Amino acid sequence: MEIELGPDERLDDLLLGGRKIIQNTKEFCFSIDAVLLAHYPKYHKSWRVFDLGTGTGVMPLLIADEVREVHGLELNPVMAELAQRNVRLNHLENKITVSQGDYRKIRELYPQESFDCVIANPPYRPLNQGTLSAEDGVARARHEITATLDDVVRAARYLLRFRGKFAMVHLPERLGEIIVAMHENQIEVKRLQLVQPKPGKPSNLMLIEGIVGAVPGGMKAELPLMVHKEDGGYTDEILRIYNIKRG
Amino acid sequence: MEIELGPDERLDDLLLGGRKIIQNTKEFCFSIDAVLLAHYPKYHKSWRVFDLGTGTGVMPLLIADEVREVHGLELNPVMAELAQRNVRLNHLENKITVSQGDYRKIRELYPQESFDCVIANPPYRPLNQGTLSAEDGVARARHEITATLDDVVRAARYLLRFRGKFAMVHLPERLGEIIVAMHENQIEVKRLQLVQPKPGKPSNLMLIEGIVGAVPGGMKAELPLMVHKEDGGYTDEILRIYNIKRG
Repeated sequence: MEIELGPDERLDDLLLGGRKIIQNTKEFCFSIDAVLLAHYPKYHKSWRVFDLGTGTGVMPLLIADEVREVHGLELNPVMAELAQRNVRLNHLENKITVSQGDYRKIRELYPQESFDCVIANPPYRPLNQGTLSAEDGVARARHEITATLDDVVRAARYLLRFRGKFAMVHLPERLGEIIVAMHENQIEVKRLQLVQPKPGKPSNLMLIEGIVGAVPGGMKAELPLMVHKEDGGYTDEILRIYNIKRG
Repeated sequence: MEIELGPDERLDDLLLGGRKIIQNTKEFCFSIDAVLLAHYPKYHKSWRVFDLGTGTGVMPLLIADEVREVHGLELNPVMAELAQRNVRLNHLENKITVSQGDYRKIRELYPQESFDCVIANPPYRPLNQGTLSAEDGVARARHEITATLDDVVRAARYLLRFRGKFAMVHLPERLGEIIVAMHENQIEVKRLQLVQPKPGKPSNLMLIEGIVGAVPGGMKAELPLMVHKEDGGYTDEILRIYNIKRG
């Protein structure tokens, strides 16, 4: 297939069985956060997985081989179209579907409790905090302009079956709000992994997973995930997640 | 002062300005958990601090020099009397008071919002979990026989002024329940420090601090506190907390 790139678009290598991804440099480009989250849940082959706010579709592309089906929903029409092209580019139409739509209206779009797992890499910052990006799409991906934390968790709860899993990547500073929002939507936290930029530097990112309808308690605090080594290079664990053989 | 030890009692050194503590070997003896928690909040000289379930009074003894006043409440009469003796033994009657009583009835015992900081090293495990200790007092200190997590947090909220601080040491597996209980009592989590037994071993203990009436969000995920080094010895940070000079 010939790859046609529009203006401001670039083609990146996903380092996973030759999988490729087109990104739009004027929109939000995926970062390490999405890669870490995609690999956080322990998927089951039979699962239907939902990606809330899929962006370029990077997480569906990364996990397509591990599950039965992935559906991505994206509000930004430019990104939704891009994600659809990325699916075709990688010949994954039988595994991945992407729709354009607003997850605040999730009840009008999907049947209730029809997914086994929901993943989300949502905007990290409340509207009143930090500088807004000049690029509209980037601002919407970073700040809670179009959806709040509560909107994401409520949509996840609606989509998930009993005992279904909800995993998010987010800022540690919002841990309290996330756990409360999950609890108010019958999702109890069961795993937490702090991500540290390097040894001796406090965590600036976290991976969190909850289960619908679970009894509270029994959370596993996992070993912190270190991104860089002291010398600045990536740790073996990060290289393994990125599927890069060393040496 | 001559120190009289009862049957099953032993005298320990607190390694803090010659401070001593009597413990009863048939009751719950303080452990590293209490020492770590005592040093977790950043105290202010003017503060009135409350220790919910003070046991032997170890935490008041450790922090007496840093604050204006410490009050300890203890349900177990044997322990409450021991804590009172420990205060006299260290000549800290002007700083520390200890009462015997039940913090589930806190409203009958103390005026509302009259403390700046509440610390608690409560029973870690729900009643339905783990093996109960044959010693009644030890069982009550370890399991939620006489008070649940919710009882502790509710008592703390009652005692704390607006913007007062609540700090606890607990099991990471109960993080979700703790954050929800705090939120339901107008306490928002602001600091979290996971404690790891040694590098490469996941956290089995955590320190957590919240503020009454704070806006949710802005939690600081601190660097994990490592107890042991790879070689089995204590880390410098632990020796510093225990006030032990190296070498």
